[in-house]
Amino acid sequence: MRIDVVTIFPEYLEPLNVSLVGKARARGQLDVHLHDLRSWTTDVHRTVDDTPYGGGPGMVMKPEPWGAALDAVLAEGAEALAADGDAAVGDAAVGDAADGDVAVQVPTLVVPTPSGRPFTQELAQELAGRSWLAFAPARYEGIDRRVIEEAATRMPVVEASIGDYVLAGGEVAVLVMVEAIARLLPGVLGNAESHRDDSFAPGAMADLLEGPVYTKPAEWRGREVPEVLLSGHHGKIARWRREQAFARTLAHRPDLVARWQQGAFDKKEREALSVLGLRWDEEQGRFRTTADAVEE
Amino acid sequence: MRIDVVTIFPEYLEPLNVSLVGKARARGQLDVHLHDLRSWTTDVHRTVDDTPYGGGPGMVMKPEPWGAALDAVLAEGAEALAADGDAAVGDAAVGDAADGDVAVQVPTLVVPTPSGRPFTQELAQELAGRSWLAFAPARYEGIDRRVIEEAATRMPVVEASIGDYVLAGGEVAVLVMVEAIARLLPGVLGNAESHRDDSFAPGAMADLLEGPVYTKPAEWRGREVPEVLLSGHHGKIARWRREQAFARTLAHRPDLVARWQQGAFDKKEREALSVLGLRWDEEQGRFRTTADAVEE
Repeated sequence: MRIDVVTIFPEYLEPLNVSLVGKARARGQLDVHLHDLRSWTTDVHRTVDDTPYGGGPGMVMKPEPWGAALDAVLAEGAEALAADGDAAVGDAAVGDAADGDVAVQVPTLVVPTPSGRPFTQELAQELAGRSWLAFAPARYEGIDRRVIEEAATRMPVVEASIGDYVLAGGEVAVLVMVEAIARLLPGVLGNAESHRDDSFAPGAMADLLEGPVYTKPAEWRGREVPEVLLSGHHGKIARWRREQAFARTLAHRPDLVARWQQGAFDKKEREALSVLGLRWDEEQGRFRTTADAVEE
Repeated sequence: MRIDVVTIFPEYLEPLNVSLVGKARARGQLDVHLHDLRSWTTDVHRTVDDTPYGGGPGMVMKPEPWGAALDAVLAEGAEALAADGDAAVGDAAVGDAADGDVAVQVPTLVVPTPSGRPFTQELAQELAGRSWLAFAPARYEGIDRRVIEEAATRMPVVEASIGDYVLAGGEVAVLVMVEAIARLLPGVLGNAESHRDDSFAPGAMADLLEGPVYTKPAEWRGREVPEVLLSGHHGKIARWRREQAFARTLAHRPDLVARWQQGAFDKKEREALSVLGLRWDEEQGRFRTTADAVEE
């Protein structure tokens, strides 16, 4: 996968040299290109921002440097991918290639912004399937809207938010997204099985938080590992882990509990849910706690 | 504010030297201490992980290095804060100081984990009010549960998740949290007003995504700035921005729309919501789209 990042703080992206992403780059699984947005400014002060039309606090990122940066990234990346012979496996270009020409490669443009759609594991998986991603992290109050609209005429654009909090800029969101995407690429994680029990992974753990984990020693500072984990009884261990996951999800993420469907649980699991105070509400089509019922 | 981070990848935290957080450190508003977890290992291989009790893929972080690291961070930080004379303004220690001794300072321990409570702007604000935070980012399948339980007997512990996706480790979550918290500290943002219109900020923009922003030139690549923004009519501009925020929130975050209350909108705003296909459902106590109504 090719990744381009245009930013006024290329040095913020240093962690892309470390750990999992750094190793994936070293192995050639990820081809990361950092670009300093200020390279595409034309004034002596290398200005990237200006005051917002309509007034108000803060500054807005000017359209010209971003437009020129995206032009350059598109041209450079398409040339490199064509030279690598990767064109055939890449993302299709936006628009009509019916005239018989080979479609020119374009990236999917990812714009981290608090007003985007939520960046979820599902979106990470979708983006992990692309061959080329370009990231446009903004600073200040954001990028002039016309940059995004114009880009959308040339390539797929995803505006995404990593969570409901305000950052100083999009760079750290790029680090988050690249790490979440990179670990899903074939061969990047050493042990393929390590995906299986992840929180938010599809399958048995969907909409369930992971419960506690333990390793040696069996006793530490007077605290013992739960006995069932030492039993060697795989069925009991699996059941205990599921029940711990139920309790943890109920404690920290009632929003996920509201997504659970009765059919996903067997008889013993439904008993465990009942012990946690959860009962199935047929009318509402969701599990509710005893506390919910009392409120009404 | 004092911040300690214990990690096996101190180099991943390099961005804490850049931009807003870097400047806050340079001005003495943030006092950041990075610690390599491996300093508290005792074997020649500096081992921090071992296989999970109960079996399964992946590795679990061993309790001994974490316990020793937290002991050292607590002792070092308390001594430094006492020497600075900051003890009086710091967080109270857990437990009873009724015997007349000055309470020993302890940090709030923040553990980034996908199974934590959601890290939100509200939690960022809460943590911005503490004088000392210690971060414990995990790698692999997580930290032995007993470390968290034992820490909770000595200091407040917050397990928090920055979003519903899986990362390779907690370090990038620390970068996210520190950036979100640091920009809320007094004097860190140049222009105090810049908080006001933030997405997720309390007040007029609560549960609303920000709409588009524009700056000069008035025409770029054939695209014009919306006329109202050039009108100089503050009332109309404010109204247009609110309406843009409504549309954007409806498009990207129906979950936020479900939190809106009718009383928060004036007559003209309710008309704008109606144009977007939103009507107030008295029975459900929330706005619904025409599409919702058709589904039933």
